[in-house]
Amino acid sequence: MERMKDEINQRLLQLCEPLKAGKVKEAMIYSLLAPGKRLRPLLFLTVLKSYQLDYHPYMDIACAIEMIHTYSLIHDDLPGMDNDDLRRGRKTCHKQFDEATAILAGDALLNLGVNIILETSLNDALKLQLAYLLYQASGVNGMIYGQQQDLYFENHKASLEQLQDIHKHKTGELISVSLQMAACIAKTSDIEHWKQIGYDLGLAFQIQDDILDVTASTEQLGKNAGSDYENHKSTYVTLLGIDESQNKVEELFEKCYERIYAMQINHGLILELFIKILKRVS
Amino acid sequence: MERMKDEINQRLLQLCEPLKAGKVKEAMIYSLLAPGKRLRPLLFLTVLKSYQLDYHPYMDIACAIEMIHTYSLIHDDLPGMDNDDLRRGRKTCHKQFDEATAILAGDALLNLGVNIILETSLNDALKLQLAYLLYQASGVNGMIYGQQQDLYFENHKASLEQLQDIHKHKTGELISVSLQMAACIAKTSDIEHWKQIGYDLGLAFQIQDDILDVTASTEQLGKNAGSDYENHKSTYVTLLGIDESQNKVEELFEKCYERIYAMQINHGLILELFIKILKRVS
Repeated sequence: MERMKDEINQRLLQLCEPLKAGKVKEAMIYSLLAPGKRLRPLLFLTVLKSYQLDYHPYMDIACAIEMIHTYSLIHDDLPGMDNDDLRRGRKTCHKQFDEATAILAGDALLNLGVNIILETSLNDALKLQLAYLLYQASGVNGMIYGQQQDLYFENHKASLEQLQDIHKHKTGELISVSLQMAACIAKTSDIEHWKQIGYDLGLAFQIQDDILDVTASTEQLGKNAGSDYENHKSTYVTLLGIDESQNKVEELFEKCYERIYAMQINHGLILELFIKILKRVS
Repeated sequence: MERMKDEINQRLLQLCEPLKAGKVKEAMIYSLLAPGKRLRPLLFLTVLKSYQLDYHPYMDIACAIEMIHTYSLIHDDLPGMDNDDLRRGRKTCHKQFDEATAILAGDALLNLGVNIILETSLNDALKLQLAYLLYQASGVNGMIYGQQQDLYFENHKASLEQLQDIHKHKTGELISVSLQMAACIAKTSDIEHWKQIGYDLGLAFQIQDDILDVTASTEQLGKNAGSDYENHKSTYVTLLGIDESQNKVEELFEKCYERIYAMQINHGLILELFIKILKRVS
C-alpha cells in the first residue's frame, strides 16, 4: 500500500512538471503533495488490482481523481467558504500563498484533470466514459451540491437524513466514482455493488470525521480539531452521540464487507485497505 | 447574428435546466445569461458557417466555450482577485449571491463544460479533440497563467512585451481556441491562420478594453470604468497613449482581414462579426 502511495505521489509531481512556472504551479504542487491519505486513488487502484489487473496503465486516472479532490479542498478552505488555516498538517493553500493564487490553483487542478484523462493512451471510448463519470460525480449534481448544502446547514439545524444527503454528495460521490471507474475498466457487472460500497464508505468516513473532530487533537488530524463544536454545526456526534456514531460506522463497514465478499475478486487487497480506513485515527 | 445569439442564450439555459436546484444553479444561470456579447461562441459558430457547415449540431460546444469564459469572469471578479462589483451591467456574482456561491458556481461551470462536450452526439475522436483544445487553452498554461500574470503586474510596472504576453494568455488563448475548434470541425488546413487571427483579435480586443476604460462610461461598459487608471495599472493607454493604441487596434484588425482573405471561405459572415467588434463602444 505504501509503495502504491509513493507511486501516486511521484506521478502527481511528474504530471505538474510540464506546467508553466509561477505561483499557481507552486501552489498546485504544494497542495497536491501535502501528506494526505490518497484514499481515492488508492481505492481506485486497489479495485483494479483486486480484478488481477495491472494498475500501472491507469496511474494517470488515479492522479486525475486526486487532483479533483485536492481542488475541492483548496476551494473549501478559502475564507469565503470554510475559512480554514490548516490542512494535511500544513498551512492551507491561501495561507501559504494568497487567496487569488489558491482560487487559481483550484481551478487549474480541476482543469488539469480533464487533460490528463484525455492524454492517456487508453482507447477513446474508455477515456470518454471515465472523464464523464468523474466530472459528473464532482459537478453541480454531485460534490459541488454537497458543499452548497454543507454551507447552508452551517447556519441551520440539520436532521440525520439531511446530514446523510450532504455526506452522500460532498464525500460519497467522489469515493463512489473512484470505485465505479475501476469497475468500468475491469468491465465487470459488479458496478452497482461498488457504487453502493462507495456511498456507504463515504458516509462512514464522514461520521469518522465527526467523531475525530471531538476525540482527536489538531496535531493528529493535520487540521483544526473541535471546529464543528465551535461552529455549533450539526454532526452525527451532536445528533447521536459518540457511541451511537461509532456503531453506525461499524455497521456501514459491515455492509461494505458483505458486498465485497459477494463479488468474485481478490478480497484480501481491498479488505486490507478498508480495515486501515476503519482503524484510522486521523 | 442576433438570432444566433438568441439561440446560444436559449441553449445555455436549457443545458442548466437538469441541474439540481439551489443557489449554485441560480448563480450559474444568473451569470451565464447576463447580457454579454457572446463573442467566443459567436466566433466559433460563424467560422463553422463560413465553411458552409450547419452550425446547429455544434451549439453545445459553443455553450461549453461560453461556460468556460463565464466561470473565469466569476472567479476573476471575486474579492480575493480583482474585487469587482459590476459585470455585464449587473452586480457581480458574489455581490448578487455570496462569495461561497460564486466560487462554487465558477467551479460548476468549469466542470459542466466537460460533460456537455462529452454528452454531444459527435464522434468520440472529435469530442476528445475539442475537449482537449478547450481545456488546454483555458488551463494553467493558458488563460489561468494569464490571470496569474495580470495579478502580478497589478503591483509591478509592465513593459509592452509583458502586457502582450498577459493578453495573449488571458484573452487570446480562449478566443483563439474558439476559432481553432471550428477549424478542427471543418477539417481544414487553415488552422494555423485561425490560431494567429485569434491571438491578434484577442490582443486588439484587450487594447480596446484599455481604451474604453478611459473613454467610456460605467453605464456603457456594464462594468466600472476608469478602474485601470485608479489602480495605476500599466495598460496600452498608459504606455502608448490613446491614439497610438487605436492605431495598434486597427493594425491588428488589418492583419486579421489579410489572413481571412487568404482562406477559401465565405468571407462576408466572419468579416461582419469582426467589423462589429472593431466598432464596439462597450
